[in-house]
Amino acid sequence: MSNFPDVIELACDLISRESVTPEDAGCQQLMASRLAPLGFNNESMVFEDTTNMWSRRGTEKPVFCFAGHTDVVPTGPLDKWHTPPFEPTIIDGVLYGRGAADMKGSLAAMVVATERFVKDYPDHKGSIAFLITSDEEGPFINGTTRVIDTLEARNEKIDWCIVGEPSSTNEVGDIVKNGRRGSITGDLTVHGIQGHVAYPEMVKNPIHDAAPALAELSQTVWDHGNDYFPPTSFQLSNVNSGTGATNVVPGELHGIFNLRYSTEINDQQIIDRVTNILDKHQLNYDIKWTFNGQPFITGEGLLLNAVTDAIFTANGLRTTPSTAGGTSDGRFIAPTGAQVVELGPCNATIHKVNEQVRCEELVQLTDMYYHTLVNLLAK
Amino acid sequence: MSNFPDVIELACDLISRESVTPEDAGCQQLMASRLAPLGFNNESMVFEDTTNMWSRRGTEKPVFCFAGHTDVVPTGPLDKWHTPPFEPTIIDGVLYGRGAADMKGSLAAMVVATERFVKDYPDHKGSIAFLITSDEEGPFINGTTRVIDTLEARNEKIDWCIVGEPSSTNEVGDIVKNGRRGSITGDLTVHGIQGHVAYPEMVKNPIHDAAPALAELSQTVWDHGNDYFPPTSFQLSNVNSGTGATNVVPGELHGIFNLRYSTEINDQQIIDRVTNILDKHQLNYDIKWTFNGQPFITGEGLLLNAVTDAIFTANGLRTTPSTAGGTSDGRFIAPTGAQVVELGPCNATIHKVNEQVRCEELVQLTDMYYHTLVNLLAK
Repeated sequence: MSNFPDVIELACDLISRESVTPEDAGCQQLMASRLAPLGFNNESMVFEDTTNMWSRRGTEKPVFCFAGHTDVVPTGPLDKWHTPPFEPTIIDGVLYGRGAADMKGSLAAMVVATERFVKDYPDHKGSIAFLITSDEEGPFINGTTRVIDTLEARNEKIDWCIVGEPSSTNEVGDIVKNGRRGSITGDLTVHGIQGHVAYPEMVKNPIHDAAPALAELSQTVWDHGNDYFPPTSFQLSNVNSGTGATNVVPGELHGIFNLRYSTEINDQQIIDRVTNILDKHQLNYDIKWTFNGQPFITGEGLLLNAVTDAIFTANGLRTTPSTAGGTSDGRFIAPTGAQVVELGPCNATIHKVNEQVRCEELVQLTDMYYHTLVNLLAK
Repeated sequence: MSNFPDVIELACDLISRESVTPEDAGCQQLMASRLAPLGFNNESMVFEDTTNMWSRRGTEKPVFCFAGHTDVVPTGPLDKWHTPPFEPTIIDGVLYGRGAADMKGSLAAMVVATERFVKDYPDHKGSIAFLITSDEEGPFINGTTRVIDTLEARNEKIDWCIVGEPSSTNEVGDIVKNGRRGSITGDLTVHGIQGHVAYPEMVKNPIHDAAPALAELSQTVWDHGNDYFPPTSFQLSNVNSGTGATNVVPGELHGIFNLRYSTEINDQQIIDRVTNILDKHQLNYDIKWTFNGQPFITGEGLLLNAVTDAIFTANGLRTTPSTAGGTSDGRFIAPTGAQVVELGPCNATIHKVNEQVRCEELVQLTDMYYHTLVNLLAK
């Protein structure tokens, strides 16, 4: 593949490593071997089954950080792939392979951009860092969050962070994520009394009890959003009740719902309002809450301006900041006070079979990362 | 077992035959061998896997019929039985075995009562008949309903029918069933559009769509019942929606509901009212209806009076007519114009492990059946 740009070769090297979560499969070692000659101090942080890396060049502030993950989601059905998922293949300028877009292509672009920047600006301001995990697609318990805990404990701060998540829609850079909604999940059990449908006076039907409350929850307006966030959204993802038999009234109903919420409301307010609705309908219930991340926002500022300018320089696009979509590890980094922007390739094929990225996207992404470094750290 | 009354011996003979639905295991042959010497014409009607018997003594009207089934439900876990389910065992005056109460004890009482009656009243009025099936506990497709079809086709009518279902609660005869509610089941699918919870504008959540409609259905007053029937009852027995994942809005919701309905409403009115509610909530849905039986009632009249008097004669109880509880094959017989009453032993252990009947109950039940015959057919 020696005819391809350096970023493509490195992306292929990374894709050929079968690093399904929580495996790293040597990806971080490969990255470290490229960063060490540039003067990076590579620190491996293994927590349980998860491999993490914290690499830093320089000791000065401000600290600019590339964040990302080496793990990938499972391949799905192999017979649906046109090319083997862990044998990176380039056809008509498109690179196919698991992780091509999410996010080994970004990792390669980060490394190559850094190599170029350090060569051009060996005496840059501040520090450059890499925060890489092998557990972004999994339970995210032993990954970025524990690295951040470690850094916080020694008062090591990130000022600016680019997460390489595939943020783009049609062209690389058309969208950057400058924040994420919060996410909270409720696991609801409504208790009734089981019995035969023929004896309604002997039963307490949890479906009947729950239906008006679920209707009210699904129709509630939680807030109206703000300049950065759409209105908070409530979705029931699962409701299950019943024994399978048509003549038995079930004893319990299980429901799972999730709210993606703006900065106009917080998790405690959500819990209070949900609880009030359930209580008002006099349900006999248990509820278990899972917190998936607070909302965060990176408004106008040095990082967003630097990225916006770098995108324009690289391919002439006026990017659009957005807070839509799912969560990312940015939610663990932003609470430390860091400015966080997500910039990566197009996300149409991520987590699917035949995951792909156009080689040109990775070349442009490398430029974008390079110019961001220039804008922020060049002397 | 020669120390036991004839009805107990015959009940034991029947229980020892392993006639789990749709097997008859020779039970009807055994009954036929007792009825033939009395002058019964035994007609076997085999439909698919189901064995049925239509036996009749006499050609005159009115026709009194004993109806019942030789099949039994499965044993359930054998290690929970204190005695082998198909080895009838009498301990302290209680007969244990699968079918003891539902309803081989009743079948034995019918045969023995008939033997006694024919001996005492050889020139009785009208005719005596037996309508016996081996598919009452199963899908009830090839059982009583097909025998009735055959009789109807040749214009052979039943005037009075006692079904031997275990109707009693504490003492045999304390309750007779003089009707049954109708039963109709709806299998509902609500269609939405599946997607990621993070993109609410891309999904149409079928749980959210359905919840207000299900709430309204569960709160609807369908009627107020009447002298014979409690109000019509609606129960959702199953609701299922969701992929299992917490972050995916499902594409469909499945619900199953059942109405037990009085004679104040009919199946078409139920369908219309349910459909109106679903349409009002603008659901995109399919619904499949299953008709489990029309309601029927046998009010004051010759049969109910004869049974009531016979119970009082046999054990001094003032019986209570009831239409509560589940369906029985009476629903197939009543629509022909027959008066139908269900009278059988206590039902506390039916379909359970260690099914049982007190021997005294079967002796009393034999008396009740005998006196009913006397009241209706003695000259």
